[in-house]
Amino acid sequence: MAEEQGITVKKMENFTDWYTQVVQKAELADYGPVQGTIAMRPYSYAIWEMIQKIFDEKIKKTGHKNAYFPTLIPEGFLKKEAEHFKGFDPEVFWVTHSGDNKLGERLVVRPTSETMIYHFYSKWIRSWRDLPLLLNQWCSVLRAEIKSTKPFIRASEFLWQEGHTAHATKEDADKEMFAILDEYVDLAESYLALEVLKGKKSEMERFPGALTTTTFESMMPDGRALQMGTSHNLGQNFSKPFKIKFLDKDKKEKFVWTTSWGISTRLLGALIMVHGDDRGLVIPPKIAPIQIVIVPVYYNEKERKDVLKKAEKVKEILKEFRVHFDGRTEYSPGWKFNEWELKGVPLRIEIGPKDVEKKHVVFARRDEAEKKKKTMVEDKEIEKEAGKTLDMIQQSLHEKSKNEMEKMTHDAKNYSEFKKAVENGGFIRAGWCGDVHCEEQIKIETSATIRVIPLKRESGFSKCVYCEKSAKEVVYFGKSY
Amino acid sequence: MAEEQGITVKKMENFTDWYTQVVQKAELADYGPVQGTIAMRPYSYAIWEMIQKIFDEKIKKTGHKNAYFPTLIPEGFLKKEAEHFKGFDPEVFWVTHSGDNKLGERLVVRPTSETMIYHFYSKWIRSWRDLPLLLNQWCSVLRAEIKSTKPFIRASEFLWQEGHTAHATKEDADKEMFAILDEYVDLAESYLALEVLKGKKSEMERFPGALTTTTFESMMPDGRALQMGTSHNLGQNFSKPFKIKFLDKDKKEKFVWTTSWGISTRLLGALIMVHGDDRGLVIPPKIAPIQIVIVPVYYNEKERKDVLKKAEKVKEILKEFRVHFDGRTEYSPGWKFNEWELKGVPLRIEIGPKDVEKKHVVFARRDEAEKKKKTMVEDKEIEKEAGKTLDMIQQSLHEKSKNEMEKMTHDAKNYSEFKKAVENGGFIRAGWCGDVHCEEQIKIETSATIRVIPLKRESGFSKCVYCEKSAKEVVYFGKSY
Repeated sequence: MAEEQGITVKKMENFTDWYTQVVQKAELADYGPVQGTIAMRPYSYAIWEMIQKIFDEKIKKTGHKNAYFPTLIPEGFLKKEAEHFKGFDPEVFWVTHSGDNKLGERLVVRPTSETMIYHFYSKWIRSWRDLPLLLNQWCSVLRAEIKSTKPFIRASEFLWQEGHTAHATKEDADKEMFAILDEYVDLAESYLALEVLKGKKSEMERFPGALTTTTFESMMPDGRALQMGTSHNLGQNFSKPFKIKFLDKDKKEKFVWTTSWGISTRLLGALIMVHGDDRGLVIPPKIAPIQIVIVPVYYNEKERKDVLKKAEKVKEILKEFRVHFDGRTEYSPGWKFNEWELKGVPLRIEIGPKDVEKKHVVFARRDEAEKKKKTMVEDKEIEKEAGKTLDMIQQSLHEKSKNEMEKMTHDAKNYSEFKKAVENGGFIRAGWCGDVHCEEQIKIETSATIRVIPLKRESGFSKCVYCEKSAKEVVYFGKSY
Repeated sequence: MAEEQGITVKKMENFTDWYTQVVQKAELADYGPVQGTIAMRPYSYAIWEMIQKIFDEKIKKTGHKNAYFPTLIPEGFLKKEAEHFKGFDPEVFWVTHSGDNKLGERLVVRPTSETMIYHFYSKWIRSWRDLPLLLNQWCSVLRAEIKSTKPFIRASEFLWQEGHTAHATKEDADKEMFAILDEYVDLAESYLALEVLKGKKSEMERFPGALTTTTFESMMPDGRALQMGTSHNLGQNFSKPFKIKFLDKDKKEKFVWTTSWGISTRLLGALIMVHGDDRGLVIPPKIAPIQIVIVPVYYNEKERKDVLKKAEKVKEILKEFRVHFDGRTEYSPGWKFNEWELKGVPLRIEIGPKDVEKKHVVFARRDEAEKKKKTMVEDKEIEKEAGKTLDMIQQSLHEKSKNEMEKMTHDAKNYSEFKKAVENGGFIRAGWCGDVHCEEQIKIETSATIRVIPLKRESGFSKCVYCEKSAKEVVYFGKSY
C-alpha cells in the first residue's frame, strides 16, 4: 500500500470520492484502459467467488445446470427480437474483422445471451419431455458505457450469471421467475446482509423483450436506488422468432415460454456502499474471504515467542473459520489494524504478552471499529465466541441496512411532497394510476422512476401522486444508479 | 436423444466421424453459428467444473489467487511485444465500433492476456515485497480458427485458465514454470487418467514472446500428438516493454521475470479421444460428474415396489459418491444401459427382482462394457466394492493410456525409419543436432514437428536423424493437432 494508508474523506461528506478510495485502497479493483472497464483484483474476486458458490449451490439444488455458450453473437440473431435489439444496439461492441479479414456478418460481443441461447434451444427442445430446460451460464458481458461509469456499479464489462429457462406454460415460467427472485432476495438479505425491496417493474422499465420483469433493489447511502438483479418472464416473445417449439402431451405443437435472470458483480458495489464506513470496507462474515484476522503484538524476543506460540494455537482452534494470521514483521500492529479495517475483515483478534499471561485474547469487531470497542475473551471460549460474534456481526449489518432503508423511505401524498422527497433522496412510496404518461412526466420533471411495484398491493394511497386520478398501484419511486 | 441412439461408426475405422458423433450424441457440445465455436452443454461443462475445482485447489494451495482482467485489449498493448503480436495478429477478433461510434483505437477480444495483465502489473509492483505476484484467471479466449476446427480440440473460442506470475529472478520464474508443469502432469495422469510426455519446446515451437516453453502432450488414437497445456518462462521479454520494475533488497531497480501457463477445455477433447470406445464416452471416475448410475429393472407392479425400495437404499448407501438414480418410466432398462454407456458413466448398478431376492446387486464397469462382464456384489459389500471398483477403473484407464502411448512411440535411428514412422503415426524418438534448419526441413518434408524435448537428456541416439551430425538432444517428434 502507498504511504496514504487510510481513506482520507468521510463517507457521508464526499460519497463519490469515498467510494473510489475504498475500491482502490482496499485493493478491490483498478481502472482498465477501455472506458468503464476494471481489473478485479484478488480481494474483490474472492468475494465474488463466495457469492458464486452460494448462488451456484442454490440453483443446482433446484435442478439448474451450468453450460457455456459462445461470446460472439451474429448481428442477425440480435435483430430477431425487435425490442431487444433496440434496447441493446446502442451499447454493444461490434467485431468486424478476424485478423485481416472483414467478416461477412458483423458480430457483437455478448451483452446478454438470450438470442444465442435460444438459437440452441430451438435445436434441443422437441417434446414436453425436454421441459423445463433449466440452464445457467457464468460469464462476462460487455456493454459500452460512456457516462457515469463506476467500478462494479456501472461498467462496460462485468461478470454475472445469466439463467435461461424454457417451460411448457406461462404459469411454469412465472413460477420460475418468482422462485429465482426469492433466491436472489435470500442471497441479498441472508448473505450480503443487504435489505432489499422486491417487486415488478413498470412497462417503461422492463427488460427489452420481456413480458414481466421482477427486480430487487437496495437503497444506497447517497439516496439513490440500486437495481441489484432482475428475473424476467419473457413470454413467447423470443420463442416465436427463434422457433422454439415442442410437442406437448396433447400432441399439439406449441411455443415454449422462457425466463431469464441475472445478478452481477454490481452486488459488490452495493456491498461496499451500504456497509462501508470512514475506515473502509465492511464485509458480512458469510461472504468474507477472510472472516477473522489474528494480529500478534509484541515488543521483544521473549514476548514474540510466547505470542506467536499462542497465535498458532488460536489459529488451530479457529480452523473451521476462514482465518488469516498476519505474521509480517515489516509492519507495526497499528498499521495492520488499519489495513484489515480498510479491507473490512469482520473480526480481528489481537494477542499480546498480557493476553498470554491472563489466558485471554482481545476481540475487535469491524462493524464497531468506530466505537473502538474491544472485548476480552477467555482462551477456552474463543471458538464459541468467535462463532457467536460473527453471527452477531452478520445480523447487525443486516439490521443496520434495514433501519437505513426504512429511514430513507418516505410517503408522498401529493406531488409537492413527492418533489421534496425526491430532492432528499431515498425511496418514495406513492399512489400511481398505472398510466405510462404520469410515469414519464414524473421522470422528466424529477428524474425519479418507478423502482418497484410491490407484489402485494400496499395500502395508504387512493390517488395517483401525479394526475390525482384513482391509484391502481402503490409503488416505490426513486432516483437510481 | 434422437432415434439413432448409439454411435454408428467404429472408433478405429472412422476416427473423425466417431469423435463428432460422441461429442453430439453424448450431449457434450453443439456447433455455434460462428466458425469454430461451440456451446458446451451441461454434461461437458460439468466435467470442466470438476477439472476447474481440482486445479483451482492445487494452485490456491501454492499461494496463487484468482482475479479477473478486461476482455478488450487495445491494439497498442498487443503491439508492445513484437514477437507476441506477430504470433497472435492473424487470428484475433477486432472490435472497431461501440454502438454506432467508431473507436479511436481498435480493440482485440482477448486471445491471451499477457499484455493486459502486464499493464496492471506495472502499476501494482513496486518493491521486492510485492513479489512473487501469483495470479490466475478463469475465462474464455478467442482466436479465429478457420481450418480443421474440431469441438474442444481446435476452436475459435475456448475456456481456460491463464496463470500470470512475476518474480524477482530468472531462477524463481523457472521454478514456477516447472512447478506448474508438474501440477498439470499430475492433473492429467492422476485425475484425467491420461499418460503424457512432458518437456520443453524447441525455439521454433515456443510461445510467441517466451524464453522457455514447457509442455505436456498426449498421443491420440489416430497417431497425432495433442498439446494439452503449456507453461512458459517469459523472461524479461514482457517486463521491459511494459516497464514492470521493482526496487530490490539491494536498492537497485530491476525488471521482473514473468511466467504464464494455461490449460483449456482442450483437455476434454483428449479425454474423449483417448478413453472413448465404440459405445461412446468413458469418463475416469475422479472427474465424472456422475460416477455411479443406478438402473432399476422390473416388469410388474409388485417387482417395481421392491426394486425401487432397494434402489433407494443403495443410493443412500452410496451417498459419498456422485450417484444418479435413473427412475424414468418412459425408457426401458436396455435403452438406459445404452444411454449411460454412451455418456461414459464409470459404474452402472443394476437392480432387478432377483437381486432383491438374493440380496445382491449387479455391477457393470463402463471400461469393460465391450466385454459385457458383470459382477454380483452382496448388499453388505456395496459401498466398499463401489469404492474399490471406481479406483480400479481409474487405474485401469491410466494403465491403458500408458500402454497405448508406449505402443505408439517408436525409435528412428535414421531418416528413412523416421519417415516410415511418421506415416504410421505416434511419437518418434530420435536424435537431433539442435539446429532449427533440420527441424524446419523435417517439418516441410514430413509435417512432423518436435513435440517434446525431455527435461532429462535421454540416451540411445548419437546422431541427428536428419543431418547425421552429432545429436545434441534426444527428442520426440510427431504430427500434431
